[in-house]
Amino acid sequence: MSRAARTIDVDLGERSYSIHVGENILGELGDAMRRAKFAQRVAIVSDRTVADLYLKPVEESLRRSGFESIAILLPAGEEHKNLESLAAIYDRVIAERFDRGSALVALGGGVVGDLAGFAAASYLRGIAYVQVPTTLLAQVDSSVGGKTAVNHREGKNLIGAFHQPRLVWIDVAALRSLPRRELLAGLAEVIKYGIIADAALFRRLEEKLDDLLAAESGILAEVVAASCAIKARVVEKDERESDLRAVLNFGHTVGHALEAATGYEKYLHGEAVAIGMVQAARISLAEGVCDAESFERIRRLIVRAGLPAQIPAGVSLEELIKHMEVDKKSAGGKIKFVLCEGIGATRFHALSPAEIVARLKENAH
Amino acid sequence: MSRAARTIDVDLGERSYSIHVGENILGELGDAMRRAKFAQRVAIVSDRTVADLYLKPVEESLRRSGFESIAILLPAGEEHKNLESLAAIYDRVIAERFDRGSALVALGGGVVGDLAGFAAASYLRGIAYVQVPTTLLAQVDSSVGGKTAVNHREGKNLIGAFHQPRLVWIDVAALRSLPRRELLAGLAEVIKYGIIADAALFRRLEEKLDDLLAAESGILAEVVAASCAIKARVVEKDERESDLRAVLNFGHTVGHALEAATGYEKYLHGEAVAIGMVQAARISLAEGVCDAESFERIRRLIVRAGLPAQIPAGVSLEELIKHMEVDKKSAGGKIKFVLCEGIGATRFHALSPAEIVARLKENAH
Repeated sequence: MSRAARTIDVDLGERSYSIHVGENILGELGDAMRRAKFAQRVAIVSDRTVADLYLKPVEESLRRSGFESIAILLPAGEEHKNLESLAAIYDRVIAERFDRGSALVALGGGVVGDLAGFAAASYLRGIAYVQVPTTLLAQVDSSVGGKTAVNHREGKNLIGAFHQPRLVWIDVAALRSLPRRELLAGLAEVIKYGIIADAALFRRLEEKLDDLLAAESGILAEVVAASCAIKARVVEKDERESDLRAVLNFGHTVGHALEAATGYEKYLHGEAVAIGMVQAARISLAEGVCDAESFERIRRLIVRAGLPAQIPAGVSLEELIKHMEVDKKSAGGKIKFVLCEGIGATRFHALSPAEIVARLKENAH
Repeated sequence: MSRAARTIDVDLGERSYSIHVGENILGELGDAMRRAKFAQRVAIVSDRTVADLYLKPVEESLRRSGFESIAILLPAGEEHKNLESLAAIYDRVIAERFDRGSALVALGGGVVGDLAGFAAASYLRGIAYVQVPTTLLAQVDSSVGGKTAVNHREGKNLIGAFHQPRLVWIDVAALRSLPRRELLAGLAEVIKYGIIADAALFRRLEEKLDDLLAAESGILAEVVAASCAIKARVVEKDERESDLRAVLNFGHTVGHALEAATGYEKYLHGEAVAIGMVQAARISLAEGVCDAESFERIRRLIVRAGLPAQIPAGVSLEELIKHMEVDKKSAGGKIKFVLCEGIGATRFHALSPAEIVARLKENAH
């Protein structure tokens, strides 16, 4: 039925869990949850778009394995990742009298995963949940590592918790239904993993870009698993993002500011990160931390992938500064900026937003 | 100025903290926070009743020690321990651009402590907070151990987190402004600590009850510190209430059900727990786990303290069952009921709500 799944273990003591990556494995979720000793009552949290495609097979898999499931469907879209949607999840699980042994299954992209994850973190002070990510971005990023959150009208992810999933179940076949633009945006995060930690992965991406853009399952499963493995190793060393985990923010300081400066409308997250990575690589080059050839390979792969690489003319650098200052990772005026040392390694530099923008101006072309 | 404070260390690895108990020590909070290396920005969360009495000295202490504080004042009362009050805290700290280094100070009773604690647990996925409890119940119970929560209209404490404070600062002088009924209700939890873990504390309570009822500071500081020490030891062994921590629920299974059955209007929490403890001791006696003399000492101390001991005639046992079943600590039909082995030790029995009620009926008098 399914190709052999790859398994990545995330070792976090009593919060350890496994990530499974495979093709056409949604129907095996119930078995996996049974083996992982989940209790009988489960709520599948999803959005209406994803539910139309994948709710049935997940429900059937759970039922075959003896689970009783209910579905909690939320409207799709980042604008619904808020306290109101969270309250809707609470209302339902409370009405259904879910107890501490019950679990949530987050079926969807990052919005669903972050919402269901925070609901699981906070209902009865924490119940189990499973991540079943259906977008590339969620598969390689938000479903692993336990960062959960909702947005506030003043900023993204301002309210949340660190709460590790008990299981992550990744079916790359779901990516075939993903709009091409979202696939590319997710690919930006895969490229990031290559840059920050895995030169061999980066080379595979250079070689197999065409297959990836065609959503060919073999190479997708390979690079998704490689990406999750890198994230898992970082999270193991720094679960609560006190230090090392900041390497995952490569490209994100400029990327986040760009998203905010354009009202979260012009760019998908991965597109803004693509621009941010090229700019971070450019700063790394200017600082003498990255060689010219590596910079050029980074820039070229991002452009070949159809991702944007330049800060658009319409966004002033002063506007970017303003949004860097409110970024929640800033502290004490300086930002821990992630530079790349060629491909496969990183280094932190403490830079103020003004210094970052000055470097960008010096090197703009 | 102040009597020497007693210090109890709570050893939870990187989440360790100290509890300080003293008299007239509110003015030293700023110094203590400075020594504990809190960053400059602090929000004091309180309710209007408590703020009238204690906000000024706390603000001045913080200012003298170089902190910048804002005050977030909520309406007083359990009915405001909800998602709306939580949103009001988020709105304010976000408007003030609090960052990950900022801290909350919970100045008040259990409602304020639980609310501010959960806000601290979830803002930016967790910032530091200080508990400055001003009621006896909060001083000996909710301020220690990191359980934070808000209520849902369908039940209490259904939404929350385990998030340890960074410091607990207990001024027993604040108890002199506490309504007598609340002092007594808090005393019920102190009596509980004696029953479950400390026969010497129980004896002190028997000897010094009159001084306690007169809110004499010396004996208050002594029994508050003894109570916190017991809670600290239990929390150290079972931070997330998976097992042992349930001993703290002695008297609470019946107590919670009684509160719910009377719409949270007839009894203060401690009063319901007082009744629950007498009933739990009665069941312990009937099961042969507790001797008759210990049962009688428990019942007598509770009655001497002016606390209720009997399930009121107007509450049917069937109604109690209903509310035990929705208690979030129940799982799989049976409740882990805490029995006392005389005074100073406990034992768990798995009992269904129906069995508990049957024992109560058999032994009613």
